[in-house]
Amino acid sequence: MPIVVQKYGGSSLADAESIKRVARRIAETRKAGNDVVVAVSAMGDSTDELLDLAQEVSPIPPPRELDMLMTAGERISMALVAMAIHDLGISARSFTGSQAGVITDESHGKAKIIDVTPGRITEALGKGHVVIVAGFQGVSQTTKEITTLGRGGTDTTAVALAAALKADVCEIYTDVDGVFTADPRIVPKARKIDRISAEEMLELAASGSKVLHLRSVEYARRYDIPIHVRSSFTPKEGTIVTDQPGPTQQGLEGEAVEAPIIAGVAHDRSEAKITVVGVPDTKGKAAQIFQAVAASEANIDMIVQNVSATETGLTDISFTLPKTDGQGAMEALQAIQEQVGFSGLQYDDQIGKLSLVGAGMRSNPGVSATFFEALAEAGVNIEMISTSEIRISVVTRSELLDEAVRAVHSAFGLDSEDGEAVVYAGTGR
Amino acid sequence: MPIVVQKYGGSSLADAESIKRVARRIAETRKAGNDVVVAVSAMGDSTDELLDLAQEVSPIPPPRELDMLMTAGERISMALVAMAIHDLGISARSFTGSQAGVITDESHGKAKIIDVTPGRITEALGKGHVVIVAGFQGVSQTTKEITTLGRGGTDTTAVALAAALKADVCEIYTDVDGVFTADPRIVPKARKIDRISAEEMLELAASGSKVLHLRSVEYARRYDIPIHVRSSFTPKEGTIVTDQPGPTQQGLEGEAVEAPIIAGVAHDRSEAKITVVGVPDTKGKAAQIFQAVAASEANIDMIVQNVSATETGLTDISFTLPKTDGQGAMEALQAIQEQVGFSGLQYDDQIGKLSLVGAGMRSNPGVSATFFEALAEAGVNIEMISTSEIRISVVTRSELLDEAVRAVHSAFGLDSEDGEAVVYAGTGR
Repeated sequence: MPIVVQKYGGSSLADAESIKRVARRIAETRKAGNDVVVAVSAMGDSTDELLDLAQEVSPIPPPRELDMLMTAGERISMALVAMAIHDLGISARSFTGSQAGVITDESHGKAKIIDVTPGRITEALGKGHVVIVAGFQGVSQTTKEITTLGRGGTDTTAVALAAALKADVCEIYTDVDGVFTADPRIVPKARKIDRISAEEMLELAASGSKVLHLRSVEYARRYDIPIHVRSSFTPKEGTIVTDQPGPTQQGLEGEAVEAPIIAGVAHDRSEAKITVVGVPDTKGKAAQIFQAVAASEANIDMIVQNVSATETGLTDISFTLPKTDGQGAMEALQAIQEQVGFSGLQYDDQIGKLSLVGAGMRSNPGVSATFFEALAEAGVNIEMISTSEIRISVVTRSELLDEAVRAVHSAFGLDSEDGEAVVYAGTGR
Repeated sequence: MPIVVQKYGGSSLADAESIKRVARRIAETRKAGNDVVVAVSAMGDSTDELLDLAQEVSPIPPPRELDMLMTAGERISMALVAMAIHDLGISARSFTGSQAGVITDESHGKAKIIDVTPGRITEALGKGHVVIVAGFQGVSQTTKEITTLGRGGTDTTAVALAAALKADVCEIYTDVDGVFTADPRIVPKARKIDRISAEEMLELAASGSKVLHLRSVEYARRYDIPIHVRSSFTPKEGTIVTDQPGPTQQGLEGEAVEAPIIAGVAHDRSEAKITVVGVPDTKGKAAQIFQAVAASEANIDMIVQNVSATETGLTDISFTLPKTDGQGAMEALQAIQEQVGFSGLQYDDQIGKLSLVGAGMRSNPGVSATFFEALAEAGVNIEMISTSEIRISVVTRSELLDEAVRAVHSAFGLDSEDGEAVVYAGTGR
């Protein structure tokens, strides 16, 4: 029997009515002749409510106990989903992350899955049950402590279960119809992508697209699990994320269709820029700076070092990082100011990042020319640039970001009305 | 180091402030030089809220999933208590029932503890941690399913942990000062009992006293664990429940003081009476009736069979049972009416039960005379009677019950103002 793994997030499980709706969807999948395993998040805002409670009790709660607390959220939703399925005449069994064999490292609050031993799941499937698993949680390998996987954890749980069970597909249910060529709230002409490669999806997720979490895409790519991102509110097909060749890559006459150059445009307002001003342009200064930032556990994204002003022998170093890491990095830099001898620090949280992603860039040298031309025509000034094989990212002023996204989206023929034969493409939702 | 086990109920853990207060109490016990293990219930009304959610999703939720759901309640409170203790500079670790080694049978919703394997608890104590354990829950021995212990379950968890850890005392914190000679809401002159035997406490708990749950007293008695029932709102000593000889049984001069005849007066309005009318007075009819009631899983308490009216050859059989079992029992009886040939059924939920409990009854034959005299003088009509070695119970009209309790309490010199040398006594709070 084919195995389908499904994931439902908190917005699909906001209240009893939503839970019943999700249960009907699961029941249909079961009745269609599949073994069904479902990973669920905590209901609606319940995670935030638990966090608030923790804050009231302790300003800096110990991570072990915070994980113990947070995991109650998925426990509640998984039991309710199992009950609702049961109420439709289909037997269902819920399992915690620990019971489901989701083995992680010891890192509370941001644990990584290192193994899945789904003995109880396969046993339950063998008895004809639908299996509901608490997402976002696991148990640590050596200390047997309850852990949580951090942001987007339930997506990762679903993909990891799909890999361990050799599932046919991992369906990620969300509140949007799939992955779009750009965020439809910014680009009304953005199109839903029918099919996208895991490689492109990875770049989009890393560049600010929030439909799928980066780690889950990495996991799916490594284990070659197709992900189907779709809405829990409609029966419509969503977006298939896979590196396997699919039917949409065949033209009407059966001959292979050229894949499009560009998958989509992602944007990200979650980063800030730190500029270290007046750094002596001597050997090892940059290393000192980035060692200090790394020690504060900040994740550096893009880096620019200005050309040294020869008359002064000083240079400026700018880098971007998540806003949430900003304070720690600033403190770390202040602590080494005297030792390194730079003259000052600037913190700028009014930046926006735009990324163009497409596997076709590799063999199409004209992409960057079109890209920068479109930004220039839209009057968007570029502050930083970085590239990968299949991505170009630029940093600009935050208030210009939306206009920049629309301009680039149009320039690459991604707008839905223009009728160009774009077979697939990707987005920040 | 002495080991103290403490139990805090939902009313002591209603919100963040209450949790912090409980944490201070636990921290004090720790600082006084004890190893501390704490069993906690779910916060305030959270159990009811979870039950409501279950009802919204499924009218008859499967018991396994209901247990999975309900156990989230203690998981939340234990993590919060551990955080609050941590915030006071004392390390604490929370454990689920399963992690704490609370092994039960397979009976969801009303599981019985069959073993406690507290390896992780003793390990954590050895490392200097305070240990917080989720009450009310365990894991089944053969199927490894999460179970709940039913009403009063956290008291039982606490006593079972105390027994397994060979604790010096099990402190049950509640919202009253201890066990009283009668419910102070009915008898304002009721006195707090300083010390009561486990045997008497058992009879009181079985007769409607709600301070301690019956199963926890049975457990404590079997393993000879002293229980200290006390208020979480004051530092005052409460009531010690133990069969071990204690200091209060020594007079001022050191000679033994005679234990009082009567421990206390309990009352119970949770039962109903079913009367099977016009039962043919032939062999086997009563057996058929009680087999049917037993098959409906009703717990029968008292039974009265009226003398047969010789001219008709018919008799009436009355019995009491918890109101919650009433509907099931009535349906079971209706189903056998034709077969047994009785003429009708009466259901009466306006009854009340009064119980007088005291180990001294064994050697004091005058007790029942005083008892019935007091009830007669108060104008209380008796409908049913049952006795044990150390208890007399009567059923009366519900509206007369309070007056009956006051009359009996006075007749045995239990009122607090009369100054009689009652060393100890017991109650339905």
